[in-house]
Amino acid sequence: MSMSMASSRFLHQHSTNLFNNNYHFTNKPSSIRITTPSFKPISIKCAATTTQIQTPPPPTAQDRVFNFAAGPATLPENVLLRAQSELYNWRGSGMSVMEMSHRGKEFLSIIQKAESDLRTLLDIPSEYSVLFLQGGATTQFAAIPLNLCTAEDTVDFVVTGSWGDKAFKEAQKFSKPKLIWSGKSEKYTKIPSFDDLDQSPDARYLHICANETIHGVEFKDYPTPKNGSGILVADMSSNFCSKPVDVSKFGVIYAGAQKNVGPSGVTIVIIRKDLIGNAQGITPVMLDYKIHDENNSLYNTPPCYGIYMCGLVFEDLLEQGGLKEVEKKNKNKGEILYNAIDESNGFYRCPVEKSVRSLMNVPFTLEKSELEAEFIKEAAKEKMVQLKGHRSVGGMRASIYNAMPLAGVEKLVAFMKDFQARHA
Amino acid sequence: MSMSMASSRFLHQHSTNLFNNNYHFTNKPSSIRITTPSFKPISIKCAATTTQIQTPPPPTAQDRVFNFAAGPATLPENVLLRAQSELYNWRGSGMSVMEMSHRGKEFLSIIQKAESDLRTLLDIPSEYSVLFLQGGATTQFAAIPLNLCTAEDTVDFVVTGSWGDKAFKEAQKFSKPKLIWSGKSEKYTKIPSFDDLDQSPDARYLHICANETIHGVEFKDYPTPKNGSGILVADMSSNFCSKPVDVSKFGVIYAGAQKNVGPSGVTIVIIRKDLIGNAQGITPVMLDYKIHDENNSLYNTPPCYGIYMCGLVFEDLLEQGGLKEVEKKNKNKGEILYNAIDESNGFYRCPVEKSVRSLMNVPFTLEKSELEAEFIKEAAKEKMVQLKGHRSVGGMRASIYNAMPLAGVEKLVAFMKDFQARHA
Repeated sequence: MSMSMASSRFLHQHSTNLFNNNYHFTNKPSSIRITTPSFKPISIKCAATTTQIQTPPPPTAQDRVFNFAAGPATLPENVLLRAQSELYNWRGSGMSVMEMSHRGKEFLSIIQKAESDLRTLLDIPSEYSVLFLQGGATTQFAAIPLNLCTAEDTVDFVVTGSWGDKAFKEAQKFSKPKLIWSGKSEKYTKIPSFDDLDQSPDARYLHICANETIHGVEFKDYPTPKNGSGILVADMSSNFCSKPVDVSKFGVIYAGAQKNVGPSGVTIVIIRKDLIGNAQGITPVMLDYKIHDENNSLYNTPPCYGIYMCGLVFEDLLEQGGLKEVEKKNKNKGEILYNAIDESNGFYRCPVEKSVRSLMNVPFTLEKSELEAEFIKEAAKEKMVQLKGHRSVGGMRASIYNAMPLAGVEKLVAFMKDFQARHA
Repeated sequence: MSMSMASSRFLHQHSTNLFNNNYHFTNKPSSIRITTPSFKPISIKCAATTTQIQTPPPPTAQDRVFNFAAGPATLPENVLLRAQSELYNWRGSGMSVMEMSHRGKEFLSIIQKAESDLRTLLDIPSEYSVLFLQGGATTQFAAIPLNLCTAEDTVDFVVTGSWGDKAFKEAQKFSKPKLIWSGKSEKYTKIPSFDDLDQSPDARYLHICANETIHGVEFKDYPTPKNGSGILVADMSSNFCSKPVDVSKFGVIYAGAQKNVGPSGVTIVIIRKDLIGNAQGITPVMLDYKIHDENNSLYNTPPCYGIYMCGLVFEDLLEQGGLKEVEKKNKNKGEILYNAIDESNGFYRCPVEKSVRSLMNVPFTLEKSELEAEFIKEAAKEKMVQLKGHRSVGGMRASIYNAMPLAGVEKLVAFMKDFQARHA
């Protein structure tokens, strides 16, 4: 059911008239109180009956697709339903989260709870700040060198896919990044042995991208930085909160929310406090961690609704038992899908080295590549969408973030087996 | 009604089981098709009856407050109701807007419609690009000089309040801004006569803030830039789409959405195309207009849900008859409130020069300033909230953006009269 603006405006005008006609104030001094006649809910409901605005159609399982997009990505159904139920009026506040002053007590409670729950989920030590920012991970590609480096500082980059490569290139404007290892010549299917890394002793930090969405390569453990500062920096945009992480190994962790923890528009930065406060003079104020930290992410207006949605996701992850439990589910889903690929006698192929296969993004191709378009089309008919591989690599890609239900993976695998049977 | 995560998870598991048990695929080659048994809506409805998740309580007029916050700010009720109705499943797509790939056809239709409607509303000439960005107006304080200037370029600033002042300070990092007029000595209650401005002939552009939220000062017309480039740049964050604007007078117009046109997290930049493409080398990629313009705001993941909400607001403004009609309403609301202040025999006072009083933000004080806390408290009891003045100036402030209904202003004025009567 779609609601026309005209019918919704009817309600708007109707309620305005109610407001207009029903106030009277007396001018007698002292003890006469303002009386506001109570609204007549019955007439509002009649309007609702006529216009059918106020009750969204009950969602049914039939409506929902399995969405394998790489980000923005599927969100937990219960989180969406909750957000829907309280969009118009958040918990008796009389307004939407989208309308709240970011400095009012309601929104402050939302952002504080979100931070607190995230700290619990990741067991973030107290010497780290948590920032909720705008601008995506792509802004962090600039912010990190601007905040941590001088223009002359060496920074070591291990590039295992496209996102690490973008971070490396952006850092060139603000530091002296050095590409100490690249997986490009092997088409980004590997992660190096950490002992093999030729780290620069004077590097300000070592940068990795913990999970590469396009190439499906994921760090299962982390290198020890062998530079003087001992700082490791990781882009965890696409596996953030998919498994436990020992935050104390890192100087900075950053993550765009729109893979595992929320809608687009929120970027979370977890940064050791001692690394804050030495930004280069050319740093725009909105990229200066000190400004955001001093102001608890409220220097300017934060992306409030996105932060609220992240908060709902964090609550849901805690209810599931936290990141150890979530990791188990993700391992199970990944195993089911990778097994289906590996047991297909080559009909399906995944090029990634087995020990570093991502549990978040599963790229695969068909031996008979001419069938790929048909595969994607048929899957979409079965309500499995966004399976096309990234435009830079082609093939297929199933993104199976936290919120992809087990049932989605099972359906995909069943479909893959059947498709193979029909095209053997 | 608040929905617990536990009960919503019941539905989640229940629907997962339905998915799990009801697929069967055959392995016979060639012509056997996949059969997917249809879901049984009845059992889903039973779950709904038990858990009461799927139907948010009908909103009533009793629930809603009049929210006079300065941004984020009140949104049109019908827009909120519409967003609520389609949050879980946008128009049969089987997913939320928050889950859509920003490169998929559904979201592309959303962002394209939003841009198209905005162009109609503001009659934007074709030689201007429209960009939907993250980072707030505060990021634009840096982006504008980074994109339009060299580090040595002079830029003229007319500062009529706090926001212009912040823009001026940020520009110091990236250009040579010159404060050619400041209202500070008169407590930001005026706008200069344009003929009096001592513009620099070699200035790269002239910068104004079209409406200052803290001080309630609004440009009613605009200065002609007398610099060589003839470029006028305006921060229109807080009166964007409140009235028609002749875009052709400007080189750049920028606006954070969260006053008049949407939730926080979206910043709209309208920029003449010939001004794009000469960003300084130190410009972070996310602040480079060329990158965003070439990619139609999809270089990286845009703030999708915020853009969607802006789109709903643009549709609503068009349905109201466009910005001429909207301006009439805003003038009427402003007149009612300012008259109440002016006719109060000094009980209420607004310090702003009458010809430049903002139609968006109305700051006022009480003659008996000791009553201000009581005023705010009593108003809040009457469901008029966020009337406290900005922390830097004190007093009261009523923000009466587009979406503040006439009824809200009328209620406030009735309350003010009664309050005065009881404290005469």
